[in-house]
Amino acid sequence: MYANNEIGSINPIREIAKICRSQGVPFHTDAVQAAAYLPLDTSSLEVDLLSLGGHKFYGPKGVGALYVRQGIELLASQTGGGQEHGLRAGTQNVPYIVGFAEALRLTAAERDERMAHVQPLREHLIGTVLEEIQDSRLTGHPNKRLPQHASFVFKGVDGNLLLTLLDAAGFACSSGSACKTGNPEPSEVMTAIGLSREWGLGSLRVTLGAATTPEQIGSFLNILPELVSQARQLNQYV
Amino acid sequence: MYANNEIGSINPIREIAKICRSQGVPFHTDAVQAAAYLPLDTSSLEVDLLSLGGHKFYGPKGVGALYVRQGIELLASQTGGGQEHGLRAGTQNVPYIVGFAEALRLTAAERDERMAHVQPLREHLIGTVLEEIQDSRLTGHPNKRLPQHASFVFKGVDGNLLLTLLDAAGFACSSGSACKTGNPEPSEVMTAIGLSREWGLGSLRVTLGAATTPEQIGSFLNILPELVSQARQLNQYV
Repeated sequence: MYANNEIGSINPIREIAKICRSQGVPFHTDAVQAAAYLPLDTSSLEVDLLSLGGHKFYGPKGVGALYVRQGIELLASQTGGGQEHGLRAGTQNVPYIVGFAEALRLTAAERDERMAHVQPLREHLIGTVLEEIQDSRLTGHPNKRLPQHASFVFKGVDGNLLLTLLDAAGFACSSGSACKTGNPEPSEVMTAIGLSREWGLGSLRVTLGAATTPEQIGSFLNILPELVSQARQLNQYV
Repeated sequence: MYANNEIGSINPIREIAKICRSQGVPFHTDAVQAAAYLPLDTSSLEVDLLSLGGHKFYGPKGVGALYVRQGIELLASQTGGGQEHGLRAGTQNVPYIVGFAEALRLTAAERDERMAHVQPLREHLIGTVLEEIQDSRLTGHPNKRLPQHASFVFKGVDGNLLLTLLDAAGFACSSGSACKTGNPEPSEVMTAIGLSREWGLGSLRVTLGAATTPEQIGSFLNILPELVSQARQLNQYV
């Protein structure tokens, strides 16, 4: 992964790609989470394959793209109609493809501006949470992370319960990965970074966007400590 | 295929499904072309799997559905995120899914009305084409065919050339299958129904819709003989 969805850490893709290339191993990176803020120049990244999802940069939700370096041969993902060089049968969603391309163009054009907007808000968010909430930790790299991404664990909290409380208060956050919704165990990412179950279940992921205001961050920071405390009290019943 | 896309013939799905079931063989039918006009009651059809595409019944283009009878086990079509019972990773296109469902609901509600609209227009179209154009033949079953579907072959015509002439005249038709666009050989369907290359290359597929008017059919029938004749003259240069 170019950048991890759960903890925001940016991985040294270029270095990994170079090692792979020197050994003749094709290299694919999942750049879905990274696309909104990190450079996607495939020559400079030296990747062979790179995948993107439209909904991570204000494109339509339900369309993606796979960059394939010339010379890389793929197996078909769906057989049937041969209109896509035999690689993927099925009727294309043309408006979504056009919307995806336009959203990506805008993302590249506005990347610096968006970054300058979210990064200081995110810094303020992380600093305040760690300062005001006991038994809280930042997950992922402190600096080498996506500029819009803040992720925490709170000891003795059920992440899904905290999400519900936040949702009721008007905040849409995430715990772990949307692909694992409903799983009652800590995600493999939490386990891989060495968190115990007691910490790993209490994960919260907050992502900011171009429309996020300082006032919203302020309201969030006003209410979060109380909600974490409620979640801790309720945790005995979970 | 419940109904063939190229020649409109309706296949005896229920009988095939019964034979399969009696032998313990799971049976899938491609109902994409059939969905707008034929009944889709999976209990009565006795199929195990049935696939649909939204754009064939005024739903969004680029979304489909697979009916899976309870007890049928599938292999994953995409691995990765496990949120769809491990069968299909990736982020769902929610608006398209909602649009698909609503279009299917409307299709079921308006099926009889739509059928009563297109069928007489289609009958008139087929009768006139066969009467007025020499060396023309209907492909597919004369009666057991989709009510909105007319398909022909014209001897000594290049189907793609005819399409271009029709397009310039304002008519969007099809030759063979969209999944085989650009293929210079007769489709396997044309070959399977026993047509020689001379006939099989000259295939034309005309599909009517809820908005098709008798005036449009009239204009089409006025211009088609001349365009077939032009295509025959031009064929020597193809």
